[in-house]
Amino acid sequence: MACFEVIGTDSHSAARRGILTTAHGVVQTPAFMPVGTAGAVKGITPEYLEASGAEIILANTYHLMLRPGAEVVQSLGGLHRLMAWDRPILTDSGGYQVFSLGELTKIDDEGVEFTSHIDGARVRLNAEIATEIQYRMGSDIIMCFDECTPLPADPARLGRVADRTFEWAKRCSSRFAVLSSQSAANNCQLSTANRQLLFGIVQGGTDLDLRRRCAEQIVEIGFDGYALGGLSVGEGHEEMSKTVRYTAPLLPVDRPRYLMGVGMPADILAAVLAGVDMFDCVLPTRNGRNAFAFVPGGALRLRNSTHIDSTEPIQPGCDCYCCRHFTRGAIRHFFNCEEMLGPILLSIHNLRFYQRLMAEIRTHIERGDFGIWAIQELEKYVETDK
Amino acid sequence: MACFEVIGTDSHSAARRGILTTAHGVVQTPAFMPVGTAGAVKGITPEYLEASGAEIILANTYHLMLRPGAEVVQSLGGLHRLMAWDRPILTDSGGYQVFSLGELTKIDDEGVEFTSHIDGARVRLNAEIATEIQYRMGSDIIMCFDECTPLPADPARLGRVADRTFEWAKRCSSRFAVLSSQSAANNCQLSTANRQLLFGIVQGGTDLDLRRRCAEQIVEIGFDGYALGGLSVGEGHEEMSKTVRYTAPLLPVDRPRYLMGVGMPADILAAVLAGVDMFDCVLPTRNGRNAFAFVPGGALRLRNSTHIDSTEPIQPGCDCYCCRHFTRGAIRHFFNCEEMLGPILLSIHNLRFYQRLMAEIRTHIERGDFGIWAIQELEKYVETDK
Repeated sequence: MACFEVIGTDSHSAARRGILTTAHGVVQTPAFMPVGTAGAVKGITPEYLEASGAEIILANTYHLMLRPGAEVVQSLGGLHRLMAWDRPILTDSGGYQVFSLGELTKIDDEGVEFTSHIDGARVRLNAEIATEIQYRMGSDIIMCFDECTPLPADPARLGRVADRTFEWAKRCSSRFAVLSSQSAANNCQLSTANRQLLFGIVQGGTDLDLRRRCAEQIVEIGFDGYALGGLSVGEGHEEMSKTVRYTAPLLPVDRPRYLMGVGMPADILAAVLAGVDMFDCVLPTRNGRNAFAFVPGGALRLRNSTHIDSTEPIQPGCDCYCCRHFTRGAIRHFFNCEEMLGPILLSIHNLRFYQRLMAEIRTHIERGDFGIWAIQELEKYVETDK
Repeated sequence: MACFEVIGTDSHSAARRGILTTAHGVVQTPAFMPVGTAGAVKGITPEYLEASGAEIILANTYHLMLRPGAEVVQSLGGLHRLMAWDRPILTDSGGYQVFSLGELTKIDDEGVEFTSHIDGARVRLNAEIATEIQYRMGSDIIMCFDECTPLPADPARLGRVADRTFEWAKRCSSRFAVLSSQSAANNCQLSTANRQLLFGIVQGGTDLDLRRRCAEQIVEIGFDGYALGGLSVGEGHEEMSKTVRYTAPLLPVDRPRYLMGVGMPADILAAVLAGVDMFDCVLPTRNGRNAFAFVPGGALRLRNSTHIDSTEPIQPGCDCYCCRHFTRGAIRHFFNCEEMLGPILLSIHNLRFYQRLMAEIRTHIERGDFGIWAIQELEKYVETDK
């Protein structure tokens, strides 16, 4: 059984409306995944997360393998039980954080050794370990272990990253096949409907030739879905959009496409136009904790004194718990006093804002007018940036 | 119309079952008020607060007058709108915090001058100002401005505190009468059913003669309810209980009795035995933020490594959101990672624990077996302390 079905396409763009089926339920795409770094989406309970409309969330393997550790996650009943979230969960491979947070002590074709940013312990991670950890924690969508490099990077370096990502993807695929067949042998209940999924990752920076080569290699191995990695790392909206527009059509139409770590509303709109189906980003929660609220076409900084006696909600008409009950003045006051309620409320609003954006995107694709609508929306964001 | 009705008494103790009526609804007593220091009960949304069973909460005048200021609270629609809480709110007078947090620059019979702990501003507070601030913020229950002193204190000092508290109480009462008559004149809708209430405070430390004198003086002025102040400030459970047992019967039977800033479950049980109706305390939320969970007869420290792989809830059988969804191991992990979800979850549980305790107390008074049950409960807590 295929895990993904395209149920509609746009008349004026490459945008697709799809349904992704996982062991913990279906996800309507294009979809946005809030990030639950260490097993919790920061600042809110899963109850509010569900109320936001989120159907799938992301958890970080790097953080969880260091603390509490994959074995503890397993003994606590797996990732879904730990997080009190019984809908789909995608886990990253740990690669991105290893390369950005851990102090690397060794990297070679076999894998990496790094020093934990928490307790200084020396930790080993490679294709097999990353796959197995995600599998055993019970992730619905497992990501291949890949090498990440910041941009700009020289072509030779990007080429080596792509080569290694290809080799590691093959090893992830093999290990995943073994784990899946073991589970199938141990559990006759296991069917295609509740099997875990494995996604490959296309690297290559903003080098389009390299992206093509990498896409062809990864597709050749064959995965349940395909991610575009190594973007939103400093290249800017235009470069990123250009790379996405070039790379997305190189991926199979009948598989979900996931743009990792993206992003701002404008980035999401541009990527959906190019045919991307899935996104994740810490911005709604991180910005919420920093008193920054997403509103249509822009943002509000709630620490600003202009809000001191404002009785308006963050976004008039918004149906989130924050907007239904609290004034801007009250929220400014909570941030001013460092009350936890400030970050809690803006995280609730921002997550709802993102999910409503995705719902609007899906509706416009269904209507066939997404391309026209998205261009208008994009212009609003560009104007705000000016 | 009386704001308080005793609807039942216990056969074996002075415990009373009552209904307190305020402008924002009724409160079943004995009642526990969670503390919303600066306009927010720390760590949770009002939605979870309501789900805990809380019918009335407390807010601190001292914190609100300094930030955002009483005028801003008014322009934001009043305290209830600021807090998104449409049930009863009691405000303290600010006195306790002035004496414990502010750097006093002057205290005399007129009032106090202090330096704000936030921005160093010089602020004046006295009987009239404290009453007016609480009135204008829209508090349902306004507390008289009183002088507080830590224990132990010498008799002469305690006597002066009691004298001043009496003089200030008369001034609060006068000011309150003026404000109420102005409101009545300005608003023909105002009836006894939605008028604000004023409570007097009995001081006197653990000096029983002084408590008697102070109680008689305060009762003579006449208030909607009476509080016992100046306890839970270091005198210990036994001394406090003795003072409460002596003082509570000196207060009118047809008025609510409120033991300020108390306390631990054992303190509450002992005070209800003595005929107290209302309590407030920061312990459920403060302890929750510090990974300390209330459970029957004792407490759990969630940072303890024994919980690392525990799949048990905090309190088996508890109906709170935390206990219905999260394991002890997961909560320990959240605290370990400094995820906000840890403090949020334990605040939810602890507040529910307190409200369930109050519900049990009310049920046992209704049945007439509270005295017997409370003694058994108290023994459990004493055993745990050993």
